[in-house]
Amino acid sequence: MESLSVALGSRSYPIHIGAGLVDQRALYAPHLRGSAAIVTNGIVAPLYLGRVRAALEASGARVAQVVVEDGEQAKGWPTLDRVIDALLAARLGRDALIVALGGGVIGDLAGFAAAVYQRGVAFIQVPTTLLAQVDSSVGGKTAINHARGKNLIGAFHQPAAVISDVATLDTLPDRELRAGLAEVIKHGVALDAALVVWLEQNIERLLARDRDALVYAVRRSCELKAAVVAEDEREAGMRALLNLGHTFGHAIEAATGFGPWLHGEAVAAGMVMAAELSRRAGMLAASDARRIEALIARAGLPTRAPKFAPERWRELIALDKKSAAGRVRFVLLEAVGRARLQAGIEDRLVDEAIAAAVQ
Amino acid sequence: MESLSVALGSRSYPIHIGAGLVDQRALYAPHLRGSAAIVTNGIVAPLYLGRVRAALEASGARVAQVVVEDGEQAKGWPTLDRVIDALLAARLGRDALIVALGGGVIGDLAGFAAAVYQRGVAFIQVPTTLLAQVDSSVGGKTAINHARGKNLIGAFHQPAAVISDVATLDTLPDRELRAGLAEVIKHGVALDAALVVWLEQNIERLLARDRDALVYAVRRSCELKAAVVAEDEREAGMRALLNLGHTFGHAIEAATGFGPWLHGEAVAAGMVMAAELSRRAGMLAASDARRIEALIARAGLPTRAPKFAPERWRELIALDKKSAAGRVRFVLLEAVGRARLQAGIEDRLVDEAIAAAVQ
Repeated sequence: MESLSVALGSRSYPIHIGAGLVDQRALYAPHLRGSAAIVTNGIVAPLYLGRVRAALEASGARVAQVVVEDGEQAKGWPTLDRVIDALLAARLGRDALIVALGGGVIGDLAGFAAAVYQRGVAFIQVPTTLLAQVDSSVGGKTAINHARGKNLIGAFHQPAAVISDVATLDTLPDRELRAGLAEVIKHGVALDAALVVWLEQNIERLLARDRDALVYAVRRSCELKAAVVAEDEREAGMRALLNLGHTFGHAIEAATGFGPWLHGEAVAAGMVMAAELSRRAGMLAASDARRIEALIARAGLPTRAPKFAPERWRELIALDKKSAAGRVRFVLLEAVGRARLQAGIEDRLVDEAIAAAVQ
Repeated sequence: MESLSVALGSRSYPIHIGAGLVDQRALYAPHLRGSAAIVTNGIVAPLYLGRVRAALEASGARVAQVVVEDGEQAKGWPTLDRVIDALLAARLGRDALIVALGGGVIGDLAGFAAAVYQRGVAFIQVPTTLLAQVDSSVGGKTAINHARGKNLIGAFHQPAAVISDVATLDTLPDRELRAGLAEVIKHGVALDAALVVWLEQNIERLLARDRDALVYAVRRSCELKAAVVAEDEREAGMRALLNLGHTFGHAIEAATGFGPWLHGEAVAAGMVMAAELSRRAGMLAASDARRIEALIARAGLPTRAPKFAPERWRELIALDKKSAAGRVRFVLLEAVGRARLQAGIEDRLVDEAIAAAVQ
């Protein structure tokens, strides 16, 4: 097991990475104060719920559980209300521990439930998808979706710990594994050219689920993200760089109704669009843009966005949370491994980049 | 105008108290970064919305407004969703300022909207009821209700400023004025015997809306509350003392369906019950319990709870957020001006205190 720390003063927390961690009682025990609730979904529950529950009960905790539907549609008010209702029905107090067992949807949903339940209780992330292990479980962003867009209602609420068990990736569908790789690629392309080189050399090992390669990819992603979060917890500045590909990616997800495109797939196509826009803005060499697209393609991820009306693109981009004082800022690239937040990009360039990037 | 500060490090904020503050542009200007949204209700809007809006626009802000229904029923998900939707429709970004213009319901609702809108934006409290000016606008507690109880979904989200204009109390119905006095009495009974003496001497002036008396009552309440919040922002300890009367009070509100009893009225009867329980637990002198009840009666507030089944009382009390590890803790009194958090109170004493306190 490898452990690293997200340095946030009194709210610092450990990330544990290894195989077979999901039922290691000692990883939960320091955070238990009598009662807990596991929030998971119908896919993950038969695989890991019993083991997590046993680990919590072995520490003497009273354990409730909530199993929600699988998929992005769970990230809305009706499901959140159901989770809150289950916590109340189990009479959990402010000292309860919420355990988010599942992928990014479960982490965001259960994390937001923990953020607002009785004005905030502790929670632990137990991510069971690659995407959640390398990205969404770290950094305290929690949210649900709104009809007008993704993650528009949420909170910054840091977990008490992250327990990333790469053995749980054995049961992950190939498509979701690739979607997770999109966020690993994003960390490299935005922040660390050396990780991009490593990915170019090891992408096949990751696709074959080589456990050592997975541990390395998860650890390196978490290190990069933890450093950014420690500097800028609430995304006042550099944390926004982690949103490379997300402005376009969120637009793809929203326009297609949240579901047909996995988040990582949308981010992958979004990164190609961000690279294309960077090139057209004169910031990025054409060879770098091609190199990014080639890596994304080798990971089996989409490099082209679906086609929809330019006005719809503009509307969805304007809604993006990175807009400041009504102006959209884009995360663009100066080089592989070096992202920059950039305002004042001409609409014409954005339209052209979109036109070049659709299927 | 008098100003005091809630000392919370980088999140410290001023409370301004005086007459005619509601449209003083200089009080809003330091917190504006381009856009704002005023959240208010159908009763307050015709009285003060135009003046607040003019003050914000005079600072060059783009201003949206959301007018919700009056009353406790606005403190639920459907109305919160409508507020969020209006903020999104107005394309407000993370730099927007939310202005909560109204009583406690508006402050809690708009404050919670600010806490979760795009993971948190700044907000200003402009309380227009005595209850909100002396209590709910200070301290950063925001929430909506759940079918199972009050304030069960919420966040600690401190305002950027509180602007308490006692001139707005001119339009407050008598019954709401009295409900606000319940929280002033609570601050004295829980924390400050001198304030109780002052109230015993000045209760008629307050009921007659003497402006100087009102400024004093608001300022002294805010000073007491600010000191407690600075010590214990997230209610890990002494902040719970401000909940004197609230465990019983919340039960009254929940059992009667949130509405027939004003919050302050329920807290008033709840304080009498807490004093009665303190007396039965051997903590409080009978003369002190009588003195508290007499002051509450002189303020024209209820001293008896409505009748409902003992099991319902127990269920609602168990749901109270102050329960730790499944055990209910009560805020009880050792003397006038000295409250204490107490666990381990026998159920029998609680039942007897309830039986003695119902109508």
